[in-house]
Amino acid sequence: MSGLEVRGVEGMGEIGRGSDLAHLISEATELRDRDILVVTQKVISKAEGAMVDVDPNDPLSHKPVVERESVRILRRRGDLVISETRHGFVCANAGIDLSNVERGKAALLPEDADRSARRIRDGLRGIADVTVGVIISDTFGRPWRRGVTDVAIGSAGIRVIQDLRGTTDTFGRELQVTEVAVVDEIAAAADLVMGKSAGIPVAVVRGVDPAIFLDAGERSSVVPDLIRHPSEDLFR
Amino acid sequence: MSGLEVRGVEGMGEIGRGSDLAHLISEATELRDRDILVVTQKVISKAEGAMVDVDPNDPLSHKPVVERESVRILRRRGDLVISETRHGFVCANAGIDLSNVERGKAALLPEDADRSARRIRDGLRGIADVTVGVIISDTFGRPWRRGVTDVAIGSAGIRVIQDLRGTTDTFGRELQVTEVAVVDEIAAAADLVMGKSAGIPVAVVRGVDPAIFLDAGERSSVVPDLIRHPSEDLFR
Repeated sequence: MSGLEVRGVEGMGEIGRGSDLAHLISEATELRDRDILVVTQKVISKAEGAMVDVDPNDPLSHKPVVERESVRILRRRGDLVISETRHGFVCANAGIDLSNVERGKAALLPEDADRSARRIRDGLRGIADVTVGVIISDTFGRPWRRGVTDVAIGSAGIRVIQDLRGTTDTFGRELQVTEVAVVDEIAAAADLVMGKSAGIPVAVVRGVDPAIFLDAGERSSVVPDLIRHPSEDLFR
Repeated sequence: MSGLEVRGVEGMGEIGRGSDLAHLISEATELRDRDILVVTQKVISKAEGAMVDVDPNDPLSHKPVVERESVRILRRRGDLVISETRHGFVCANAGIDLSNVERGKAALLPEDADRSARRIRDGLRGIADVTVGVIISDTFGRPWRRGVTDVAIGSAGIRVIQDLRGTTDTFGRELQVTEVAVVDEIAAAADLVMGKSAGIPVAVVRGVDPAIFLDAGERSSVVPDLIRHPSEDLFR
């Protein structure tokens, strides 16, 4: 039970508008039931055409797009904008990204990354007859700590929060820290094999606690369940 | 290169003041050069005696300790305190923890978790003749997103931030997102095999990019390099 395997999926080629990601993934790798696929936001945005034109000679030409994609600006410093996107994510530049995309283009966040994840999961069930979990990951900064880490912006088939309430520690006492953001931990683990420059857009995580897989009829995904409501948020 | 293995180390028994962690780890598992060990804060605090007495019948009796261990209170809501510890970490309850410790005791954060990590790394070099990286992990919440994830509070032998500046993306353009908090991603990956109730205090991560290992004479650790200076922090 206590072993985990994380591997990058290579050889998927360049992804463009209309690419069938479930099909490409199933061609590129062997999957088993209860594997978790982590797919980077970038290939989702490309496949779904969530791209805008920018001036390749003006490093700030995506800034009006940042304003448009934001519902609330939390902080500004120089060119940096930390805002809340219409999905509810708090991140820099409304998640708009210029790296690993064609010159003159910028990638927006997917319209609904939970839906994107469901499509891939359902596609793989049809094509490869496997039941997997899917996470869409993106790279966000955070307050108080330097550097970025990958987190989940969409998911399908798995609980985003593993609730350990009611379980006891090794002394038989009920656990205080109870709600683990497992999808973010899985996204972080996947980034370790994808890197930022390696061109590996998908990773397979095998061996995660099967308890995080949803039972029939259960629902859990990132936007409804992982985003902290502003009224509960001490820093918004 | 693109494969990672994460496994929990079981059978270390209960850790107490003075326990020799390097010795116990080397007895419990086989290690190779360039493995990364992730050790939870709890066993470090126990082995180093960073524990205080609390009233087992008063769920709030650790609160004065929280105030004492904090250098700055960022937010309060009801019994919850988000503060900056003297190490510079921003977290709930100054990192003080009552789960997985004896009744009537609370675990403080280690005095200097970077030093704790160095001790384990140096110990393992002597005992087992291996050169490993070591991360001390703890479980923190964060703004904007529900749930907790494991992050690094100390490290030895590895770069805490992987700087990808100067590397190019698949289109040959210089990467914008350049500083990846790899130690936090590794701590998160390790938590997936340790759980909160499983009593697995150590994990081994094998297969991480060897570029993150420090060269002779280089230095990098969590407190000096990962904590964002308050003057650079937009949310403090």
